[in-house]
Amino acid sequence: MPELRKDPILGRWIIIARERSKRPTDFVVASPDTVGGFCPLCPEHERTTPDEVLAYGRNPGQPANSPGWKLRVVPNKYPALVIEGELDKEGEGLYDRMNGIGAHEVVIESPNHSDRFAFLPPEQMILTFQAFRERIHDLSQDPRFLYVMIFKNFGKDAGASLEHSHSQLVALPIMPRMLEAELKGSLEYFKYKDRCVFCDIIRQEMQQKIRLVCENDKFVTLTPFAPRTPFEMWIMPKKHSSAYREQDDASLASLTNIFSETLRRLDGCIPGVPYNFVLHTQPLREKPQEHFHWHFEIVPKLTSIAGFEWGTGFYINPMPPEDTCQYLRDIVLD
Amino acid sequence: MPELRKDPILGRWIIIARERSKRPTDFVVASPDTVGGFCPLCPEHERTTPDEVLAYGRNPGQPANSPGWKLRVVPNKYPALVIEGELDKEGEGLYDRMNGIGAHEVVIESPNHSDRFAFLPPEQMILTFQAFRERIHDLSQDPRFLYVMIFKNFGKDAGASLEHSHSQLVALPIMPRMLEAELKGSLEYFKYKDRCVFCDIIRQEMQQKIRLVCENDKFVTLTPFAPRTPFEMWIMPKKHSSAYREQDDASLASLTNIFSETLRRLDGCIPGVPYNFVLHTQPLREKPQEHFHWHFEIVPKLTSIAGFEWGTGFYINPMPPEDTCQYLRDIVLD
Repeated sequence: MPELRKDPILGRWIIIARERSKRPTDFVVASPDTVGGFCPLCPEHERTTPDEVLAYGRNPGQPANSPGWKLRVVPNKYPALVIEGELDKEGEGLYDRMNGIGAHEVVIESPNHSDRFAFLPPEQMILTFQAFRERIHDLSQDPRFLYVMIFKNFGKDAGASLEHSHSQLVALPIMPRMLEAELKGSLEYFKYKDRCVFCDIIRQEMQQKIRLVCENDKFVTLTPFAPRTPFEMWIMPKKHSSAYREQDDASLASLTNIFSETLRRLDGCIPGVPYNFVLHTQPLREKPQEHFHWHFEIVPKLTSIAGFEWGTGFYINPMPPEDTCQYLRDIVLD
Repeated sequence: MPELRKDPILGRWIIIARERSKRPTDFVVASPDTVGGFCPLCPEHERTTPDEVLAYGRNPGQPANSPGWKLRVVPNKYPALVIEGELDKEGEGLYDRMNGIGAHEVVIESPNHSDRFAFLPPEQMILTFQAFRERIHDLSQDPRFLYVMIFKNFGKDAGASLEHSHSQLVALPIMPRMLEAELKGSLEYFKYKDRCVFCDIIRQEMQQKIRLVCENDKFVTLTPFAPRTPFEMWIMPKKHSSAYREQDDASLASLTNIFSETLRRLDGCIPGVPYNFVLHTQPLREKPQEHFHWHFEIVPKLTSIAGFEWGTGFYINPMPPEDTCQYLRDIVLD
């Protein structure tokens, strides 16, 4: 059983998820899954994954875990958290731990092994955003969970252990520290100004236009004022909304368009660059929040600058967001 | 002039330090400095660095910036922050920025290009810890600085851009976010328990012995209860002390011994593994603090698990600290 542990100074929770028979030197070699060969996420291999929890696109009457799907969500075969059991919180002297209860799922974004998320056709890409919404709804029924974290690792250097295009979802019995910090910071701003800080950022960026990468009817992509890395980008709905799961299909269609444009602009600047994206949305158990604003953060993994910050949490960024924004805007898309 | 910028939601400061003529694709290739060739940190090349601010080991009468040194501290040639100028805080709409005033120095830990810090003889290694102390003292005279961050990047994957053994020091006009969080968390604990949380951790770990890697008369090395990565280690003084700069030479000799043993145990487990270490000490402008306890954190950079956390701030650790501790203890040192 995986375990959740809390740092007694920072209050930061981490997951201890033992990998089978790992020895110390195993940590420095690439995961063998990354190098071609058999792909458990491809069609016809449905039986090599745990039973699916959601699938889109099969013809009516086709059984679960059979080919013919356009998108498939399956439990992670090597989960960081497990769905069955009690939380069983306990102390160990001054330390706190609990059982690693949660869900860890894989969203297989396309049946085609060689598809890349950034270049999926809109009618395929939107399925991923719909699946995120549906899985959040479903997992929010489980009273043990406080948050559903959704993220994508693209490229081995960004942590992807499988080549086939996929994203991941982790339902957590605790709040991730970064979300806590955002909720707290935005609530302080709201108490002081009576406005959402994200709405204020969008307003200012749409006036200044120096960090505005692109926009459409419902969304905006910008390079944030104080980015951790060059080419960090945030995609935010223009209209205030704290919960991703409340988006309707029209909103997800707009999101699909701007997400696709944003990733293709990034790829135009640094072809094939690994990146992570993370959905930031409100906690499952809260009512809609006036101070918080859901958004995606896209953080490229740039090899020549990624070492120091890992150990220190302190970021030195060699390129201002106004410059990266200009590079991104200058890309000519087909 | 570099610039400090504050994230308006998290309150996190980052440094924007433009590198000359960087284009987007430059970020994904290795820094050319890493691949052999001319080393600006070697003896006889003193004139290729900015003028030294400290040197140990030269014979009396030898001029500054000449060979014959055992350790040398020089300003970084490509500084993230610059020493000359005013802070000039200003807003830009809802954003805050200030001039990137600070010091950015390089501690050249040995004259020998091929020496590795972990394997320096004690009489050489202690010079580094003495230099840290002396530079903190000196930089604390400058009223613009609130904190001196000291760290080492070992190995390209951990951010080192030069092969020659060195560590770095950044004097900051702001408090780094991770230190702020530690100070806050430890103060909360102190208010509740009237004890230092780090002292309590040391007491518990010395009783339990399941995460105790090694100890000597004055120091202890442990794998923390909730580590971010396998083989994360903390080196802490057994006796309460909030300020590194208050350590006497006897204390630094003990620190040298345990630091050397700790790094050699790590290297025994994963030969050549890249790592960062970071000194956590109290702010420059505070009196000694009952709630805070200075220490070093050593965080190895393990390639197969380092992607996801970068984007999310959420850590999944595949090996419990009790296991890594056992591996570290089992190493037989010469």
